[in-house]
Amino acid sequence: MTQNIYDDPGFFENYSRLPRSQEGLDGAPEWPALQALLPDLHERAVLDLGCGFGWFCRWARQHGAAHVRGIDVSERMLARARAATQDAAIVYDRADLEELALPPNAFDLVFSSLTLHYIVNLDRLLAQVHDLLHRGGHLIFSVEHPIFTAPSKQGWRIHPDGHKTWPIDSYLDEGPRSTDWLAKGVIKQHRTVATYINTLLRVGFSLSHLEEWGPTDQQIASHPPLADERQRPPFLLVAASKSAG
Amino acid sequence: MTQNIYDDPGFFENYSRLPRSQEGLDGAPEWPALQALLPDLHERAVLDLGCGFGWFCRWARQHGAAHVRGIDVSERMLARARAATQDAAIVYDRADLEELALPPNAFDLVFSSLTLHYIVNLDRLLAQVHDLLHRGGHLIFSVEHPIFTAPSKQGWRIHPDGHKTWPIDSYLDEGPRSTDWLAKGVIKQHRTVATYINTLLRVGFSLSHLEEWGPTDQQIASHPPLADERQRPPFLLVAASKSAG
Repeated sequence: MTQNIYDDPGFFENYSRLPRSQEGLDGAPEWPALQALLPDLHERAVLDLGCGFGWFCRWARQHGAAHVRGIDVSERMLARARAATQDAAIVYDRADLEELALPPNAFDLVFSSLTLHYIVNLDRLLAQVHDLLHRGGHLIFSVEHPIFTAPSKQGWRIHPDGHKTWPIDSYLDEGPRSTDWLAKGVIKQHRTVATYINTLLRVGFSLSHLEEWGPTDQQIASHPPLADERQRPPFLLVAASKSAG
Repeated sequence: MTQNIYDDPGFFENYSRLPRSQEGLDGAPEWPALQALLPDLHERAVLDLGCGFGWFCRWARQHGAAHVRGIDVSERMLARARAATQDAAIVYDRADLEELALPPNAFDLVFSSLTLHYIVNLDRLLAQVHDLLHRGGHLIFSVEHPIFTAPSKQGWRIHPDGHKTWPIDSYLDEGPRSTDWLAKGVIKQHRTVATYINTLLRVGFSLSHLEEWGPTDQQIASHPPLADERQRPPFLLVAASKSAG
């Protein structure tokens, strides 16, 4: 099973302090761009893979979704998600996404935020997601950008004049990367942009939109350190759909 | 009009010495991967945008194409292309791709190798290409990879232990990049992967395959310096099609 770092007490405590944990969706600078890719949720059935504290599940219900199911591998996150709502139309389940097994043709939208880069067997999961969707249904997800995950040693290089570069190597060598992010030895899977796209196409999706997210001028004005993220995109956002035909 | 660097005598002389100029398609290490994306050409009408010395035009005819049209902005390259064939089913025309204007629904395949990164108005050209294709027709192209074109100063950083990294900056800042490649001040247009993909989708194409090209183990074995190219992909290969519906 996937490394369940979110149930590591130290990691969990650090993760809980991030703006996106404390402020929810509005604490995530890529949320406006991700939100812009979402279809109308009115009366729709929604699945959130890697739902965490359940921010998106609650948002989806507030925006008209009929039923929302949130899946996560972390007991700690699910406990907090369950405590945050009394809404019977939101159901949280613990599952390892490597072994996800749900009935087919059940959802109109599958959403996943910054989760799929933990998955080893992405082919299997995306084929499952394709099966789970109704025809015409949508998959909208974000992952850490392959430019971000590629390097054997991730980090900025700061030049004497203050200019920053992001040195890349190993881009075409896919596989695990161990990083010290909120805890030592967090394992994420590096994949190329092409692998994300071609896996989607191979299991039957049509690609609708690709976004290499960076902050807007307005976001940089209100939070200047975000400017670095325009040097290399931190996130990849993808919209795909299951053919209606 | 686009900078016509290929008619600069110094550039032309240097370009003419490259393996891909002397040996043709087999001198280009990405050719096997590009070839694998091509549809069956038997009895098909083919257009090559940026045909250069005409290597692909002749190859397409040898592989069954009924008619081939090669377009290039360089007089020098077209002169050599014309001198290399007597085949009346291959026609070469000089045109600036920024202002391409051909009758619609005329081609089954539009091919373009390492040309579109010179184009300023890519939206216009790709919309034109979509019009030029029959329904069910294909667009197959290669460009310099955005990871390759992004940096404000392109080049490897060689670490004391011999390890190489490719420092990235300015990835999200699209626009011209001036490089000293075969001549001083060659202007290419940096675009993100997302912009290539979304422009295709917006003008009506479906994406069939994306490849971030790097050398195979066998290619590295026979030409060891190619190994660097696995650190960051030098080329992006794209296959798209015009809906048959």
